[in-house]
Order: sequence, then structure tokens, then C-alpha cells
Amino acid sequence: MTATTPTGSRTRLTPEQRRSQLLDLGVRLLATRSLDELSIDLLAEEAGISRGLLYHYFGNKHAFHEAVVRRAADDLIAQTAPPVDGEPLERLLVSVAAYLDYVVANYEGYLSLVKGAAGGNDTLREIYEEARSALTDRIFREDAQGTIIPDTPASRLIVRGWAALAEELVLTWVVDPAGVTRDELLGILAASLPALVDAVPGPA
Amino acid sequence: MTATTPTGSRTRLTPEQRRSQLLDLGVRLLATRSLDELSIDLLAEEAGISRGLLYHYFGNKHAFHEAVVRRAADDLIAQTAPPVDGEPLERLLVSVAAYLDYVVANYEGYLSLVKGAAGGNDTLREIYEEARSALTDRIFREDAQGTIIPDTPASRLIVRGWAALAEELVLTWVVDPAGVTRDELLGILAASLPALVDAVPGPA
Repeated sequence: MTATTPTGSRTRLTPEQRRSQLLDLGVRLLATRSLDELSIDLLAEEAGISRGLLYHYFGNKHAFHEAVVRRAADDLIAQTAPPVDGEPLERLLVSVAAYLDYVVANYEGYLSLVKGAAGGNDTLREIYEEARSALTDRIFREDAQGTIIPDTPASRLIVRGWAALAEELVLTWVVDPAGVTRDELLGILAASLPALVDAVPGPA
Repeated sequence: MTATTPTGSRTRLTPEQRRSQLLDLGVRLLATRSLDELSIDLLAEEAGISRGLLYHYFGNKHAFHEAVVRRAADDLIAQTAPPVDGEPLERLLVSVAAYLDYVVANYEGYLSLVKGAAGGNDTLREIYEEARSALTDRIFREDAQGTIIPDTPASRLIVRGWAALAEELVLTWVVDPAGVTRDELLGILAASLPALVDAVPGPA
């Protein structure tokens, strides 16, 4: 594998760069198929390299799957990063729209991650929980615009529940929009978090 | 197995009654263990009857698990039935409190149902979806007090999301209440549904 530098010359990739390219390919393949369907054989065929070389990079199928899912989770976190500027709720809306677009574009792979994590695969569970924490912790992170909601045990619980709601709504809507438009869905998702927070009883 | 009639005499059970008693025992055993841990051997030991007789009643382990989970789902639906009278939101609160109590009392079995359904077991998925539909359809059912929310595609989606939120909050809270009291949790759960419904954008 080679890469083109900014000056147009071709340069040999380091092993780390090769591995990273293969992971990117794995993530692309995972977008339209489940983790069960993502084999070393398929990746070897698509990459045009030997299975032996893939085992050299990833060790075994389990480690390969783990590396691909970690990369996919990193992509999800990066792609849904809210803009630095703007009102908190506008920034939340942008982030939620990016989440919806990510799930639409990577439905099969994302669904297999959710199912695997919920079904008791510890590695997938760990990656899934890390990604969800990264996504929801943003909501509590202090920034120039201040936090959207106060950081209390009750609101932490609410945000966790909201994340489950958002995931359920998006996964349901992608399969059957039932007359709800994309904009309506985004409106529901973004409005639901402050509505939930307002519904939390205050400290006694 | 025998049962005592209201008049105190003992009477021989019909096969259907025996099967039902065994299912009740299975549900009780499932309360404190996962479905994987609920074996025909264990049920035979607890019931004091032979494994052969259990196979006679249930066919195989898969059919036994299916029957127990269906019974457990029926119990959940029955125990969380809202009272006939009262304001819609009071009735919702009673139903939600019963749901919380059910999960607390049957945590291991309930968690294994949720995991099995999410993890891709089609039979568990079907029973889980039926139970959830039964629980959420109540919210749309017309009654003397009127419906809590209008029956539109957007509000159907919202209620589905709310059910995911409620399940996530309850399962999280049971493991780690994080300083949130039972009453606070119930307040959050009951207040969140109308808050979400109010957040749904109206028809264009």
C-alpha cells in the first residue's frame, strides 16, 4: 500500500499507517453488514492482500472485530462533535443531526454493535459504554457557553435515559419513519432533553 | 401434585393445572437467575419431579424457556395494569411504580429477557416486543378519563422512546441508585412522558 504526499510523490506506508488503512476499510465494510458478516476473508479480498498479512496485523478475528468496532466508535464520537460556538441547544441539535446521519449511513454495523453490547459480549459492551459516555459526557462538560443542564445524580440518570430514548427513536425511525420527517425527528430528539431535564424534580 | 380447594379437600390437578404450576415455579426461579441458569434439571429438583415428566410437559429446553418467559411477561403486564379510576397521570404513576417493583423483584430474569431480546434471540425478541406493546398501547387506549396523549405517528414514536428510557433508568437505578430515591425516580419516570409529549412539535 502506498499513499500520495501533498507534494505528489508516493511514499511507503509505515506498518501503523497500513493497519489504520485496513481499519478504515473494515469500518466501511461494516457500514452495510453486521459484525458477524465481517470476516478476515472479506477484508483480505477487498484490500487485495493475503489473509496471512491480516492475521499479522490483527492477530485473530476477535481482535480484528474489536479494533474495527473501536475505530467505528471513534468515528462516531468525532463525527458527532458539537460545534464550538453557538447556543447550547443549537449545538445539541447539530450533534444529534450528525448522530442520525451516522446511524443512517452505518445502520447494519451500528445495529450489530448495539445488539452485541446488549446481548452480553463484554468487549462490545465496553466499547459501546465508552462511546455512549463520551457522547453524553459532552452534555455536562463546561464550556464557554456553560452547561446545558446541572450536573446532579438525577440529571446524569436522565441523560442516560435520554441516550437510550435517542437510540431507540433513531433505530426505529430508520426502519420505519411512519410519516415522521427527518426534521420532525430531529426536533423531537433535541427538544426532548431539555423537556426531560425540566421534568426532573428539584433537590428536596 | 395436588391442590387444596376452598372447602379444604385435596383434589388431583389436571395436566394443564400441573403445567401452569410448573410455569409459576419457573418464573419464581427466574426472578433471581438468568435464563441461561434456568435448567430443566433445576426445575425438576425444585419441583421434586423427574426430568422426564418435565420433558413431557415442555418438550425441550427451548420450549420450556419460551413458556416461562411468556408467563413472566404475562405477569409483568398483569402486575403493572393501571387502576381503572383516577386521573391519567396518577394512573400512569401507579403503573410505573408497579413496573419498578416488578424489575426490582425479578431483576436477573428481567435483565436476561432484555439482553436476549436485544441480542438477537428471535423468540425472546417477539415476547419482549409483545409485552412492551401491551404496556405502551395502554397509554393510547381510550378510557373514561380520555387518552393521555393524542395517537399520532410522532407520539407513538415518543412513547416507544419513553419505554426505552424507562427501562434504561430502572435497570441502571436498581444496580446503582447514585443518591436518587425511589420516589424521585418514580417522579422522573411519570413526569417524563408528558414532558416528552409536550416537546413533540405539533402537526405542520
